[in-house]
Amino acid sequence: MAKDKKLVEAITSMEEDFAQWYTDVVKKAELTDYTSVKGCMVIKPAGYAIWENIQHELDRRFKETGVENVYLPMLIPESLLQKEKDHVEGFAPEVAWVTHGGLEPLQERMCVRPTSETLFCDFYANDIHSYRDLPKVYNQWCSVMRWEKTTRPFLRSREFLWQEGHTAHATAEEAEERTIQMLNVYADFCEEFLAIPVIKGRKTDKEKFAGAEATYTIESLMHDGKALQSGTSHNFGDGFAKAFGIQYADKDNTLKYVHQTSWGMTTRMIGAIIMVHGDNSGLVLPPRVAPTQVMVIPIQMQKDGVLDKANEVKTALAAAGLRVKLDDSEKSPGWKFSEQEMRGIPVRIELGPKDIEAGQAVIVRRDTREKLVTPLSELPQKTAEVLETMQKDMLERARAHRDAHTYTARTLDEFKDIAENKPGFIKAMWCGCQECEDALKEEAGVTSRCIPFVQEQISDTCIYCGKPATKMVYWGKAY
Amino acid sequence: MAKDKKLVEAITSMEEDFAQWYTDVVKKAELTDYTSVKGCMVIKPAGYAIWENIQHELDRRFKETGVENVYLPMLIPESLLQKEKDHVEGFAPEVAWVTHGGLEPLQERMCVRPTSETLFCDFYANDIHSYRDLPKVYNQWCSVMRWEKTTRPFLRSREFLWQEGHTAHATAEEAEERTIQMLNVYADFCEEFLAIPVIKGRKTDKEKFAGAEATYTIESLMHDGKALQSGTSHNFGDGFAKAFGIQYADKDNTLKYVHQTSWGMTTRMIGAIIMVHGDNSGLVLPPRVAPTQVMVIPIQMQKDGVLDKANEVKTALAAAGLRVKLDDSEKSPGWKFSEQEMRGIPVRIELGPKDIEAGQAVIVRRDTREKLVTPLSELPQKTAEVLETMQKDMLERARAHRDAHTYTARTLDEFKDIAENKPGFIKAMWCGCQECEDALKEEAGVTSRCIPFVQEQISDTCIYCGKPATKMVYWGKAY
Repeated sequence: MAKDKKLVEAITSMEEDFAQWYTDVVKKAELTDYTSVKGCMVIKPAGYAIWENIQHELDRRFKETGVENVYLPMLIPESLLQKEKDHVEGFAPEVAWVTHGGLEPLQERMCVRPTSETLFCDFYANDIHSYRDLPKVYNQWCSVMRWEKTTRPFLRSREFLWQEGHTAHATAEEAEERTIQMLNVYADFCEEFLAIPVIKGRKTDKEKFAGAEATYTIESLMHDGKALQSGTSHNFGDGFAKAFGIQYADKDNTLKYVHQTSWGMTTRMIGAIIMVHGDNSGLVLPPRVAPTQVMVIPIQMQKDGVLDKANEVKTALAAAGLRVKLDDSEKSPGWKFSEQEMRGIPVRIELGPKDIEAGQAVIVRRDTREKLVTPLSELPQKTAEVLETMQKDMLERARAHRDAHTYTARTLDEFKDIAENKPGFIKAMWCGCQECEDALKEEAGVTSRCIPFVQEQISDTCIYCGKPATKMVYWGKAY
Repeated sequence: MAKDKKLVEAITSMEEDFAQWYTDVVKKAELTDYTSVKGCMVIKPAGYAIWENIQHELDRRFKETGVENVYLPMLIPESLLQKEKDHVEGFAPEVAWVTHGGLEPLQERMCVRPTSETLFCDFYANDIHSYRDLPKVYNQWCSVMRWEKTTRPFLRSREFLWQEGHTAHATAEEAEERTIQMLNVYADFCEEFLAIPVIKGRKTDKEKFAGAEATYTIESLMHDGKALQSGTSHNFGDGFAKAFGIQYADKDNTLKYVHQTSWGMTTRMIGAIIMVHGDNSGLVLPPRVAPTQVMVIPIQMQKDGVLDKANEVKTALAAAGLRVKLDDSEKSPGWKFSEQEMRGIPVRIELGPKDIEAGQAVIVRRDTREKLVTPLSELPQKTAEVLETMQKDMLERARAHRDAHTYTARTLDEFKDIAENKPGFIKAMWCGCQECEDALKEEAGVTSRCIPFVQEQISDTCIYCGKPATKMVYWGKAY
């Protein structure tokens, strides 16, 4: 027990070393484990249950917009990967190659999918013939592999889980509409479900997806002031369609190329939850995504009637539709509190002999530690209310943190000073040329995060070269 | 349209050519498609939606027994695969090898998981220390790869989707209990959800899983009299634990090896649904697994009020909790009927101007073509009843078919005659030695399917060698 207790207490504070704090939380909330497979992770039950809730909610939102799920092969023949020039250049350096099947060498080597545009294109080229076959609005849930050099659980690993949507449309307008629609699905999902506020915008050409005409992104800000690209939606125009010969006979009987999109969100969002909401006691899960929302913790459990009442409370909360557990293990209440806090369970209910005598229990919020003494009869309703309030407060707190760490730069010196001393987003004007983007990375260590849809005219000239500015851009250091 | 119509009509009859019938149904019900990746398949929306329902229901049943989901890497380093001798012998000849990551050769090659015992063992060896860490009852949903030479959609393909449960227990008894428990989950799932009756039993040593102490199986019979292994549950004893060093400190402070199990069910169950329930009009889906349970098909749709009423009907059925669609496309009703039948949608509701005038609609069952004229006010309730009845009837019909194709052999001549002329299961006594099993395969072309839990004493001697029999065995040709 002494050893176990140490495990929970030995968490690095985030002010001292944010990276180590992150690693500690991931490990001590039992989200992942290391494996013998370098750069890959084991996602443990507590981590996977979060992913299941993300999947379930995203999938529901996708299907409301007409998305259908499919499954395509995990291997891509090299000749297929090479069909779209920009795409292969972007991905070939970081794929894993299968060269042997059983005891024999393959005639053509295949890579484990790093993303499946080429497979979907190959499929669509066979499956789409007429305007009546359009649109195709398909998605798949799967794992992909990118041979990263340095890895961190959830944030960057050689294998990760995601969904990848791939659509084909008759017109460029419809493809653009779908691209934006899915970006909005991601943004709403992040804000409403994960309590993570996002900036919606477009990637610069330098930062866009290999093979895309336009990449849209939602960017969020972590507690340490670094940005996290949280979901992307790409409009391919007809580039892939031309490379793969995906044509349809239109109503006027002429052959036309389809217009395509793709969009993805990954297990890195679990990393975002940790880094946006966590604190020095561990994980803090927004109630909507939390696998367990309420932990009932009995005090003086051995006393007559305490455990019975705790079970009653659990049953009543479950009946009210809450995801609730009872910790009746042989540990001290204090230890159970620490554990519940480390695991980020949004609310605990403390219940001891004195509470029972007074016909009450104590609801304790994970985020604020606020305590609410509540009559037992009102417990299910009050707990539900506390969870709702907490969900909203977490979003507002994250938004306030982001806004407080969003800076405006009007001169290059100011820009560099912020980049060096004030972790967060920097808003600054840009002329639109990649040279300035490269120079800002070189000199200030930041990349362009996005050209936000909501523009501000901070000044008329590019922060770097002084030429006329075309866009206001969010810049920052990023995961 | 003419061309489309031909597509539906051109289905081979199952009596003429069962294999071609199967291929036709898979293609024309739009369950899968071929790809440029040899031996792999695209699972299209109609096929994947069936898998989603299977997943959802199985996962629910698993969780009721305490199963937790996790995710482990898709690659296995060669040295890890080799740790358990029998296991590597069984799988090494049929795995795909990754030899390069990015532009560089790997120091050690890795295979794409054909199954994940070795990865779970590696994980458990790190994660299990004390009796307090036990049991571990984990499962993962993923895809696996086995380099098969000949492939068929769902039944045998190089990549397939499945779940694989992997558990670790303190005692041999507990492991055996879990092995049987999960076999029972599979059996109940098949019968109650897929309407597929199964024989529960144990595999002979020859047919058991590579590395297992005992393999249990559920075997089902397809319409053509061939068997399909439908789910397996393995007890590994402490063999893997010894090979991987998975030990725990027991209450008495001594180190002990854990006892392990694994169990899996795959997308081949979609093949089973097709081959147990399908007919010469296409797929027939049991109502519980059907993504769409009811198709409302309006007759004389252009007439005033028909489409409105059809929409009303759809809304009322959906409100009653049924999965319902309305086919309001510009096709003839006859064409829509064929399409609904080909896709195996369990019930259609026909609704024309005369029906509306009479305040009624016609419920048509997919399996029996029975028509039930029903007052509109009773439609939701009656449709739900028809679906329930159909689900039960499908199971009973499949059971009757299986029983009618289960034969008892008392002599070797009889055995060979049945094997040659009467497709189905053969029940016959066996001495327990592999020589006789090999000989029966060689001479009669059948394999042992299982040693059923429910034994019958058909005779006292082995059907092949005449020595004393130890067990009654189900034999048959299998997919």
